[in-house]
Amino acid sequence: MVVCSIYAIGEELLEGSIVDTNSPYIAKRLIKEGYSVKEIKILPDKISSIVSALENGIKNSDIIITTGGLGPTFDDVTIESLSKISGRELVLNEEAFSVLKEKMQSRKREINEGHIKQVMLPEGSIVFNNPIGTAPGVGVEIGNSIIIALPGIPDEMKNILEQEVMPYIKGKYKSTTLYISDLYFANTSESAVNKVIVENNIHKIVQTIVNVSKGKIIVRLRSNNSDNLLHAENVLKRSLDQYYYGKNDDTLEDVLIKKLIDKDITIATAESCTGGLIGSMLTNVAGASNVYKGGVVVYSNEAKVKLLYIDEELLKNKGAVSYEVANHMAINVAKIFGTNMSIAVTGIAGPAGGSKEKPVGLVYIGIFFKSACEVYKHIFSGSRKDIRERTATTALAYTLDLLRK
Amino acid sequence: MVVCSIYAIGEELLEGSIVDTNSPYIAKRLIKEGYSVKEIKILPDKISSIVSALENGIKNSDIIITTGGLGPTFDDVTIESLSKISGRELVLNEEAFSVLKEKMQSRKREINEGHIKQVMLPEGSIVFNNPIGTAPGVGVEIGNSIIIALPGIPDEMKNILEQEVMPYIKGKYKSTTLYISDLYFANTSESAVNKVIVENNIHKIVQTIVNVSKGKIIVRLRSNNSDNLLHAENVLKRSLDQYYYGKNDDTLEDVLIKKLIDKDITIATAESCTGGLIGSMLTNVAGASNVYKGGVVVYSNEAKVKLLYIDEELLKNKGAVSYEVANHMAINVAKIFGTNMSIAVTGIAGPAGGSKEKPVGLVYIGIFFKSACEVYKHIFSGSRKDIRERTATTALAYTLDLLRK
Repeated sequence: MVVCSIYAIGEELLEGSIVDTNSPYIAKRLIKEGYSVKEIKILPDKISSIVSALENGIKNSDIIITTGGLGPTFDDVTIESLSKISGRELVLNEEAFSVLKEKMQSRKREINEGHIKQVMLPEGSIVFNNPIGTAPGVGVEIGNSIIIALPGIPDEMKNILEQEVMPYIKGKYKSTTLYISDLYFANTSESAVNKVIVENNIHKIVQTIVNVSKGKIIVRLRSNNSDNLLHAENVLKRSLDQYYYGKNDDTLEDVLIKKLIDKDITIATAESCTGGLIGSMLTNVAGASNVYKGGVVVYSNEAKVKLLYIDEELLKNKGAVSYEVANHMAINVAKIFGTNMSIAVTGIAGPAGGSKEKPVGLVYIGIFFKSACEVYKHIFSGSRKDIRERTATTALAYTLDLLRK
Repeated sequence: MVVCSIYAIGEELLEGSIVDTNSPYIAKRLIKEGYSVKEIKILPDKISSIVSALENGIKNSDIIITTGGLGPTFDDVTIESLSKISGRELVLNEEAFSVLKEKMQSRKREINEGHIKQVMLPEGSIVFNNPIGTAPGVGVEIGNSIIIALPGIPDEMKNILEQEVMPYIKGKYKSTTLYISDLYFANTSESAVNKVIVENNIHKIVQTIVNVSKGKIIVRLRSNNSDNLLHAENVLKRSLDQYYYGKNDDTLEDVLIKKLIDKDITIATAESCTGGLIGSMLTNVAGASNVYKGGVVVYSNEAKVKLLYIDEELLKNKGAVSYEVANHMAINVAKIFGTNMSIAVTGIAGPAGGSKEKPVGLVYIGIFFKSACEVYKHIFSGSRKDIRERTATTALAYTLDLLRK
């Protein structure tokens, strides 16, 4: 089995200012392709520490991937550490330099000293192109092993890993096949999902882990037998049909936008407590403009009246956070944007603003579809951020559910 | 200086299924109290790996804190590893056992084999009480150092750390006072900030780290001399005055909302490419409703015409992504919501939709204030997500800047 180690480099990670999400991402990716991960370490921006970790790591790893320390500033020392451990001089890498020149020309920017530092690489380095930033990924072979240094900025790291590094690794190192499925469910509970797993002995057939995140339930299935994995997947999907929304790289918003495009249904949003979060999630998906026409953020009562034509009397009598207001918000926003469907939310995200009758976490979600409006009431717990995220996730899950009926 | 190492134990962490948030939490906590963190490692649930990491770690750490592997099942092997490395037999710990008995009695539950396993500890262990779960924290002294094993469940870990472990450590290990400042800048570049640091020798006076995140530049300053820290802080703030927006727990949106409340200025948003992200950021701040009246997400041309009264001819002649449209969006949305100020953005987030004249990443930001509108043009690079995040951050930074003038 090919053994990999992952080192995240950065003082800010070591002192807990930033949580290292790069290493778990890389680990997951390597394991998915059938490689094994032996260790994850966080190291300071210090040449001696990095070199010593690499020296130890290379003894029993085929592949070491590092993230961080490739920036233009004085405290970025990963490349210098690579030069030290490989005994290869830092030289201007022609390939990386010509890519850099092109990039700067197209952006009409001057090349500065910091940029040059980023293309001074150990002699004979393998260059992994970075289409987003200026620092390329760098591979240095030592014996039969390789050290691959990637930038710490997650989007840059992911891009280089997917486009350049994984193809390289797969071409060079033989993998053991492991079948993996992560299934996603919304609007249900961990114990409901757990019940299905236990009753069907799924955890005895394949490795099964259940996690909860932002109101979604994630079931991780793993097996080296593809039939077993498929069986487990099918049982879960069938038993939890109306809560299942996607797997692996799917996000709730991706699936929803795709469904809307497939069915040629347009949508609009009217948000109060989420303040634009639902619109922001939908428009995170490339191609959203095909179906998402827009929305209003009606964060004040005046805005609800003026932009959404909510009756002032109704607001006074029932309150902004009410069944009736959610209902009218949904109906009216669809009318305004001329869409077939709409999502409206009104609620109390806290920490202030709650009362005994209307506590913090109370949320009404209105969804207009096929000339009718469904309104759902929830009382979410957690922080302001939690409540807003759960509201958005739940609203999207209901929308998807209506589309599947 | 007292040196600490942190090891997170668990296969699911090493496979990237779960992100390790325990280690950053502990690191931050230790550093705040004036201790230093030398390394963070993720280890598998394997006795040989844990023992070997502890053996190496104890050589140059005063304190090692581990999380995970204290559960009742066969794959929880942290305590056994502690026994191995300390050469102390596992015996029934009377103190931990009596706490367990009480806990089970009050919960009216039977003590089972799994519970007993959790109180079989190395002879002479220090017990750190766990008020939430059944597994206590365990301290084993080796020479002048100590290994402290805590449960992996974040709530249990935090509780034991705060209530029991930190008081113990502070009573026993002298801390060095470390002064910390994180300064935040927006609308400038990493290299511009770096230039100020290097020209003023800031990195030679205090420990200095520069990070970039979502279009913001973060400068982390650390020193055990408060005068030096203050000096460094002042030089940076003075030299980068118009880009500086806050420090430590401040976020750009917090600072902006506070400023708006102080000056009694109301605000509205008109978003195209960001799809609600700016509204969502502003309303993340509790109390935003005092100044943020709402916004529109005009994701289609029809919506720009219908909701914001943008001239159809203008849209046709100049295009939706243009100086003129940003200008009108800002002016009109302030009128609609009756606010003193407004933010409007229109741009091409990609990956599709770009052209030679109007490439992906082209963004116009219009800010209306004091009966005038400023429009800023940017070409951001990166993924769709990056471009959207940078647009939002930059728009908020310009808004703050105008308020300070």
